[in-house]
Amino acid sequence: MVNARPKALIFDVFGTLVDWRGSVAREARSMFGEMLDADAFARAWRARYQPSMENIRNGTRGFVRLDDLHRENLDEILAPFDLTDTEESRLSQLNTAWHRLDPWPDVQEGMAMLRPNFFLAPCSNGNTSLMIRLARHAGLPWDTILGAEPAQDYKPQSKVYLCSADWLGLQPDEVMMVAAHNDDLVAARQAGLQTAFFPRPQEFGNGQTRDLEASRDWDFVATDLVDLAKQLR
Amino acid sequence: MVNARPKALIFDVFGTLVDWRGSVAREARSMFGEMLDADAFARAWRARYQPSMENIRNGTRGFVRLDDLHRENLDEILAPFDLTDTEESRLSQLNTAWHRLDPWPDVQEGMAMLRPNFFLAPCSNGNTSLMIRLARHAGLPWDTILGAEPAQDYKPQSKVYLCSADWLGLQPDEVMMVAAHNDDLVAARQAGLQTAFFPRPQEFGNGQTRDLEASRDWDFVATDLVDLAKQLR
Repeated sequence: MVNARPKALIFDVFGTLVDWRGSVAREARSMFGEMLDADAFARAWRARYQPSMENIRNGTRGFVRLDDLHRENLDEILAPFDLTDTEESRLSQLNTAWHRLDPWPDVQEGMAMLRPNFFLAPCSNGNTSLMIRLARHAGLPWDTILGAEPAQDYKPQSKVYLCSADWLGLQPDEVMMVAAHNDDLVAARQAGLQTAFFPRPQEFGNGQTRDLEASRDWDFVATDLVDLAKQLR
Repeated sequence: MVNARPKALIFDVFGTLVDWRGSVAREARSMFGEMLDADAFARAWRARYQPSMENIRNGTRGFVRLDDLHRENLDEILAPFDLTDTEESRLSQLNTAWHRLDPWPDVQEGMAMLRPNFFLAPCSNGNTSLMIRLARHAGLPWDTILGAEPAQDYKPQSKVYLCSADWLGLQPDEVMMVAAHNDDLVAARQAGLQTAFFPRPQEFGNGQTRDLEASRDWDFVATDLVDLAKQLR
């Protein structure tokens, strides 16, 4: 089956468009100094990301936005990193590091190429206010913010992809999910969306073993966002 | 009480930012020719707007997006305007006239002045996909789309204003509602938002009697969006 060209592209954000590891580490280093292993700190914080959503996905906890999950997860890694005496005002400031993640170098150029021809929106687990601030910081030209908060659930629940298409006024197969994570695309395809992949081999730093290449026959496989934009021209 | 400067401005759209009457009349005229009283047709269509939301506001009907209410309302005015033999494809096309409303002349300049200093979003009864297409047509630089669809209810229900502030990650008094309709601002103030008014004396054409001036002591009263942007500098 050959799909028609999509009318909208929706994007995974953390890892796919922005470098969470480098950006969070930079803010942690600037706050706590060189005594902290800032890269390990950023990875440890992120490692609690998926598990913290699990009881929301399975319905044992009501929807809680990602800013609040980030803060719960931060509180849990203070002890292992010897940071339990950090003042509340600094923790609260550090939690907003996720609003100031830097884009990968190809992202702004790729978005500018895509914008004239496609509706563009994040389909992220980040909440709306986080995504708005991140878009201002990273220069992401969204038409609107879609994802977890509109759907009141977390990816990879199919509801999140389907709600995104619905709010765009489109059928699922008129929308293409773009991600550097194969599992995100497995779920998007299952929900009926088109799929596009490019790798981000430095998302987790040297020694990254996952998502170095496409694991399935995604509709588009590119080297980065600019390459995807060229393929979609 | 003097409010601090707001962090976000949220906007009524139909009438306040765009000329629905002139734009819908233009499309109707282009489709049906000069035999139709296009201005009366646009007004009659819009006259069914508020009543069609009423049973959603009072809970006797589940949430239905505005594109669908517009279509129901269009179907109801076909007979009085002698248009019952219009093909489905043309009706469906005409229903999207609400996606192509022209901005008032001051809007793009005013938005460009405001954008560096405030988060900007619609707080409209228009659904997300309508607002996205309208933003592309009219050049409205939104950070995200807020309003009826996120809240799953229609203004002036307080839920719509409160959900908008919440999704922006702000307290109600950190958000200012901007509208050319006093009743919208009454509801926004009741929900705890700041308020700004400017008139649109041609929204309903010559002989308009409502909303020609501020009916209360709104936080800001301006002549148009550029004037408001200057006052907020």
